[in-house]
Amino acid sequence: MRIDGLQYANWSEKIFRQMRDGNVDAVHVTISYHENFRETVLNFEQWNRCFEQYPDLIMKGQWARDIDEARNTGRTAIFFGFQNPAPIEDDIGLVEIVHTLGARFMQLTYNNQSLLATGCYEAEDTGITRMGKQVIKEMNRVGLVIDMSHSADRSTIEATELSQRPIAITHANLHEWAPALRNKKHDVIKAVTENGGMMGFSVYPHHLKGKSDCTLQSFCEMVAMAAEKYGVDHFGIGTDLCQDQPDSVVEWMRVGRWSKEIDYGEGSAAAPGFPPMPTWFNDNRDFGNIEAGLRDIGFNEEEVGKLIGKNWYRFFAENFTPAARD
Amino acid sequence: MRIDGLQYANWSEKIFRQMRDGNVDAVHVTISYHENFRETVLNFEQWNRCFEQYPDLIMKGQWARDIDEARNTGRTAIFFGFQNPAPIEDDIGLVEIVHTLGARFMQLTYNNQSLLATGCYEAEDTGITRMGKQVIKEMNRVGLVIDMSHSADRSTIEATELSQRPIAITHANLHEWAPALRNKKHDVIKAVTENGGMMGFSVYPHHLKGKSDCTLQSFCEMVAMAAEKYGVDHFGIGTDLCQDQPDSVVEWMRVGRWSKEIDYGEGSAAAPGFPPMPTWFNDNRDFGNIEAGLRDIGFNEEEVGKLIGKNWYRFFAENFTPAARD
Repeated sequence: MRIDGLQYANWSEKIFRQMRDGNVDAVHVTISYHENFRETVLNFEQWNRCFEQYPDLIMKGQWARDIDEARNTGRTAIFFGFQNPAPIEDDIGLVEIVHTLGARFMQLTYNNQSLLATGCYEAEDTGITRMGKQVIKEMNRVGLVIDMSHSADRSTIEATELSQRPIAITHANLHEWAPALRNKKHDVIKAVTENGGMMGFSVYPHHLKGKSDCTLQSFCEMVAMAAEKYGVDHFGIGTDLCQDQPDSVVEWMRVGRWSKEIDYGEGSAAAPGFPPMPTWFNDNRDFGNIEAGLRDIGFNEEEVGKLIGKNWYRFFAENFTPAARD
Repeated sequence: MRIDGLQYANWSEKIFRQMRDGNVDAVHVTISYHENFRETVLNFEQWNRCFEQYPDLIMKGQWARDIDEARNTGRTAIFFGFQNPAPIEDDIGLVEIVHTLGARFMQLTYNNQSLLATGCYEAEDTGITRMGKQVIKEMNRVGLVIDMSHSADRSTIEATELSQRPIAITHANLHEWAPALRNKKHDVIKAVTENGGMMGFSVYPHHLKGKSDCTLQSFCEMVAMAAEKYGVDHFGIGTDLCQDQPDSVVEWMRVGRWSKEIDYGEGSAAAPGFPPMPTWFNDNRDFGNIEAGLRDIGFNEEEVGKLIGKNWYRFFAENFTPAARD
């Protein structure tokens, strides 16, 4: 079972076919960054058209059991998420509405301060806001997973304390392996994993040691380091694959409508676009390379199976359904 | 099994308890008239809060089987509908979105010309529009039932011809019994029932013979006349109960934001508000009166069961799910 904890590709039949070629059973797909509620609904609509157009390749994923159905019918289940709380605007009632429409992950922040928490690029981190505390409770109630991939450290740790259910870092790596601002430090990973949470490892070059030149072996050594420290059950893959996206989309991700000046995020004026992918992971057909790399580094079959999909499956099964009533 | 094909009350714990006292298992509830998409979402949100607040009295209804669950747990299942296509604005993609959120009925018009068809108060009826034809196809596909209660005759008959699935007139009576503009003529009822559709009988005084003074016996005689002519399987109740609503809400129903001048609809300047209900039906506790009246007029137990709920149940079971793929 192969599950990817995050992708944001420029979706097309070509990519859907590559997912099938790579035996990818499920993908958590980002459908909104800075889109407001109505714009997010347009993105749901666009996916509805895709499900109508490619019924043999993909299906809407709502529950873990949909992954079983996808496997039984040779398709990939698409689960939706947001990298920012922009879709719920300032209305807590929209948490249940977007969950009903199929959203399963929502980041409390994307780099900047949001209405809910502090992003990882802000100078100061004031933790979870008043609205953030209410929204965490509501996300717990309906089964919308808190994703802190782009959040600042204190906000992330506070989220693990406030949340009654496990949270996720869908796409990031260990800071001690590659000290990118977006990679996660010990205290953060400890808090997330001790709370029962999951972290997906990213192959986005800015998150890799040596960036585009990172070797598969080095990547797998990091996975081994994490499994050793925090337990193999808390990790999966979250490639952050942004395949076929034009540079204009990187700009949308980075500045949305919040700035008139360009912000290069993890890039720079000299390298404003997407960096080249590492040789061993270009698209969905390359999950076999990661699996082989994990085996080569010494993981046994059961561990490889968990890391490449079964841990995410368990996490989906436990966290997408509404909380049981008290 | 008791099912009401349409209510638009000013919902409160009092009314929810009256539904339980009346053993009403399911109600189709209007949640939008002139509300646009975002406003309609606020109405869904308000109902989500009700389901959270009164979990022992009501539950969200999505499928016919939810009525079984409601009966097994002593609750009333609430099914949602719109009396106008305003919630989908000019965006056909919203048809699937509102169905996902729980809408199960949508009128193509409310008295006036809409983007989709002609309403019953317009001077000329040009039938189903270009967009209307596309939206009917999409409603058929996703399982959103076409309701023509407030539509003009030609538009209604064309809808029965264009629709691949049965349509409904959720709340109206026979024009030959009470010649109100909103009551339905022979050709219309024939087209709807021959297409497999359903009609719910209304106790809204403006639709009754003798209005507020209408007797239960006269009402039941009309039901018998309809069952005789078109078949007992095509009819149910659709009270159009607008309990506890202030007159400002009648005004919203009638003019929304489309006119600066007041339009009295079925009322008049002398009687602008809700007329008094007939003595034998004031609220949800009075379904037993209708049942007794149907028995007294000569319907047998099986027929009474169909008219008071089982016909709607069958219709819900067949028409709320997405169409099977070709």
